[in-house]
Amino acid sequence: MEFDLIQKYFMRPSKNHKVILGNGDDCALIHTDKVLAVSADTLVEGTHFLENKITPADLGYRALAVNLSDLAAMGAKPVAFLLSLTLPKINELWLAEFSKGLLSWNIDLIGGNTTQGPLTINITIIGELPSGKALKRGAAKINDHIYVTGILGLAPVRPTPRVEFSQSLLDLAHAAIDISDGLTQDLTHILTASHLGAELELSKIPGTDFNRGEDYELCFTAPPCNEEKIRKLAEQTLTPLAKIGKVISKPGIWDKAGYAITVQGYQHFS
Amino acid sequence: MEFDLIQKYFMRPSKNHKVILGNGDDCALIHTDKVLAVSADTLVEGTHFLENKITPADLGYRALAVNLSDLAAMGAKPVAFLLSLTLPKINELWLAEFSKGLLSWNIDLIGGNTTQGPLTINITIIGELPSGKALKRGAAKINDHIYVTGILGLAPVRPTPRVEFSQSLLDLAHAAIDISDGLTQDLTHILTASHLGAELELSKIPGTDFNRGEDYELCFTAPPCNEEKIRKLAEQTLTPLAKIGKVISKPGIWDKAGYAITVQGYQHFS
Repeated sequence: MEFDLIQKYFMRPSKNHKVILGNGDDCALIHTDKVLAVSADTLVEGTHFLENKITPADLGYRALAVNLSDLAAMGAKPVAFLLSLTLPKINELWLAEFSKGLLSWNIDLIGGNTTQGPLTINITIIGELPSGKALKRGAAKINDHIYVTGILGLAPVRPTPRVEFSQSLLDLAHAAIDISDGLTQDLTHILTASHLGAELELSKIPGTDFNRGEDYELCFTAPPCNEEKIRKLAEQTLTPLAKIGKVISKPGIWDKAGYAITVQGYQHFS
Repeated sequence: MEFDLIQKYFMRPSKNHKVILGNGDDCALIHTDKVLAVSADTLVEGTHFLENKITPADLGYRALAVNLSDLAAMGAKPVAFLLSLTLPKINELWLAEFSKGLLSWNIDLIGGNTTQGPLTINITIIGELPSGKALKRGAAKINDHIYVTGILGLAPVRPTPRVEFSQSLLDLAHAAIDISDGLTQDLTHILTASHLGAELELSKIPGTDFNRGEDYELCFTAPPCNEEKIRKLAEQTLTPLAKIGKVISKPGIWDKAGYAITVQGYQHFS
């Protein structure tokens, strides 16, 4: 690990009692009696962003946001993260701005490394869940309502991962996923894992281009009996929410008239 | 996550009861009542390896080996890992060979992603430690013996992380680090963190070029009273071991005649 670089730009005193040993040794040490949720995501210059189209601060903000979105998709609470930063050269101004965006999330950076090479940002995020609880993709049930948060198709530079909202969803919803590759493609992951299908009301989907991807909003399914509680939770947490359809037994995604809706979205390899 | 690619080449049924949910959801879920040790490392084509100088199988083997070496440097036991693979294009033969080398370690892959871009391999490794125990860099004590494993300067394509040996060291040693950047540079991390110095017997250092780096052997310090136990442990685990000096109060690294030994090693940014 290039300790000096990490130390200078990214280390802040930890306020997190779960972090026993932060950055600066061969490993970080953490302890929790809960279940750990772990996920990793990569942003590559030229593939996921263009350096002259996004400020370093926005990039730092976004890099952690897309990882927090994965925790939100499980209903997990953030604990800490590791940053692996590959840089063509050391640019102090860039690093200072990037770290500002990244650290504005106020989550402990506990490890990682810096290496020389094409600009690539890799983050591993660690969260925690109460034992036995998680919004798994395969947990949708027939007749579940299907919801999405936010407005789709905006693909904002600074997405809003639904971290708090989703932690409260743990007791109300069945399955969830974050919308990174487009609504129909991501919803299909839930449906395939649950061996079920969906009937959508297209007019209820908020936004114009729901298959564009990069929204980092939540798509989730929940039993009809929890609708009122879910709407209240959305109001309390200022989370825009729309009910867009229901889970059915017939595989695939269909509209109310029974026509198949084509699954489209972002392809990772062109 | 490009689930299909990961699924096809890297997923194997888990035999690890600590892994509650492996690859294929938004997060992996793991549970242990011990302390978790976490570390991340990156290999960039052109910086850490040249594609025409290393086979994909050796590269897969090496990528996990260098991360296991970080766990060994804490005395931690491997639990699982996440793989973030950035590839210029999908090359099925390359992926099949790379996964063979990687999976030969028999450690659970629980998450990660594949993205398009310059060839980069990022691994986050997760291990566990008994509560209150760890071979921290800052734990060296005056008069500790200083040991190294293996032969330095070979920089083997398939390094041998000292994972088993180091778990047994937890009760015998004080501080440890893995030698990735060269003996004097890595030993200096221990000495700086412990606010101490070292007196080395250069003739006792095994190998010719101990500052070359990329050995992934262990350097550790232990109280003199544990010498016999440590030598027995090394024999039992077939770990080549050399006592190369001792910890002293005077900062810096010195030879027996009192001359300063220059700290040299691999620089991450040229």
